[in-house]
Amino acid sequence: MNTVKRAVVLVSGGLDSATTLAMAKDQGFDCHALAVNYGQRHRSELQAAERVARAAGVPLRIVDIDLRSIGGSALTDDIEVPEGGTEGIPVTYVPARNTIMLSLAMGLAEVLQAEAIFIGVNAVDYSGYPDCRPEFIAAFESLANRATKAAVEGAPLAIHTPLIDLTKAEIIQRGTLLGVDYGDTVSCYQADEDGRACAVCDSCLIRIAGFQAAGITDPTRYA
Amino acid sequence: MNTVKRAVVLVSGGLDSATTLAMAKDQGFDCHALAVNYGQRHRSELQAAERVARAAGVPLRIVDIDLRSIGGSALTDDIEVPEGGTEGIPVTYVPARNTIMLSLAMGLAEVLQAEAIFIGVNAVDYSGYPDCRPEFIAAFESLANRATKAAVEGAPLAIHTPLIDLTKAEIIQRGTLLGVDYGDTVSCYQADEDGRACAVCDSCLIRIAGFQAAGITDPTRYA
Repeated sequence: MNTVKRAVVLVSGGLDSATTLAMAKDQGFDCHALAVNYGQRHRSELQAAERVARAAGVPLRIVDIDLRSIGGSALTDDIEVPEGGTEGIPVTYVPARNTIMLSLAMGLAEVLQAEAIFIGVNAVDYSGYPDCRPEFIAAFESLANRATKAAVEGAPLAIHTPLIDLTKAEIIQRGTLLGVDYGDTVSCYQADEDGRACAVCDSCLIRIAGFQAAGITDPTRYA
Repeated sequence: MNTVKRAVVLVSGGLDSATTLAMAKDQGFDCHALAVNYGQRHRSELQAAERVARAAGVPLRIVDIDLRSIGGSALTDDIEVPEGGTEGIPVTYVPARNTIMLSLAMGLAEVLQAEAIFIGVNAVDYSGYPDCRPEFIAAFESLANRATKAAVEGAPLAIHTPLIDLTKAEIIQRGTLLGVDYGDTVSCYQADEDGRACAVCDSCLIRIAGFQAAGITDPTRYA
């Protein structure tokens, strides 16, 4: 058995997962970051994931998966990204994204004999993504404990979602206290090649409002 | 709503998934085949998947995913493939493979508005893979019905496992009645570049014994 508490932490290069990684480290976990390159249009996200892992001093693995053959999302297809004020489930929804990312994290957790997966999903600002809700996370944990060698052998895997009930402002405040440099992160759905954010997409608008509500200066570079 | 019954069928190029596809077609589903290229050492598997889909007259999508950055399996690492008689969970186990494949199928099912996923898992000859057991499949179905837009909107997704209780001989007998040409399929963990099987790995031994028990001539080309 491991005496070290080990965790796989899903990182995207965004604000939420950078905070999640800082929280997992603060809880004493030996963290291993996992980023999924799912054929995004914005490669700047992966560069941000590399900066976030480096700043936290944890190893980063990147899994390449090409979801374009499945399609269905503005993030991987050639659909226009909407600018502000959409309702219901947005067209930026990637089919099965969190399920796929958690599956990959589960595979890595098994290989590393990790006891936990951290994912920065959030039910407050969840934007209508079905796979950001607590009942989805509970169902995945139940699945994981039937899916792996470790589960068969009696070592459970826990899915941690430390942001699930926090507002964006609270996330930014917690991360700032833990020393996260949000200048390393990118939230924008259409950041330019230098990682500068557009300031008009849904994701930018949520980020800007979050920093304002937190009373913390936004270090993001906007185009 | 769809009036057509539509299904995503996971195909690997192996005997089991070719039979599963034939069964799904026989049940009247409009079938869409999905193969996952998870960095296998044996590319002949994907060529077999293409032959199987073509013979069934169904479209095939291939998702490329590189699991080598996760590791842990003889199928994707440089570990020797064992020859016959292993016990417990074999080293050819790919971490989280069925979970990842079902997640991808779920994403495609959402995009295609399919109501079913077919996967050729089998609990009889299951070789110790935890993610081939009925309780795993039930947990995934429960997850899927919390994970997708369609689930949120009340259209359930069913996971069909028509082979779950069949012996290898019964699978071969059913598929033969449905016109499956098993010469199109490859089971071998280490088939050569021409798709010829080794006749000595676990998977070949199970296949050979299955055809013998079924009383059906094995069309496999052995090296």
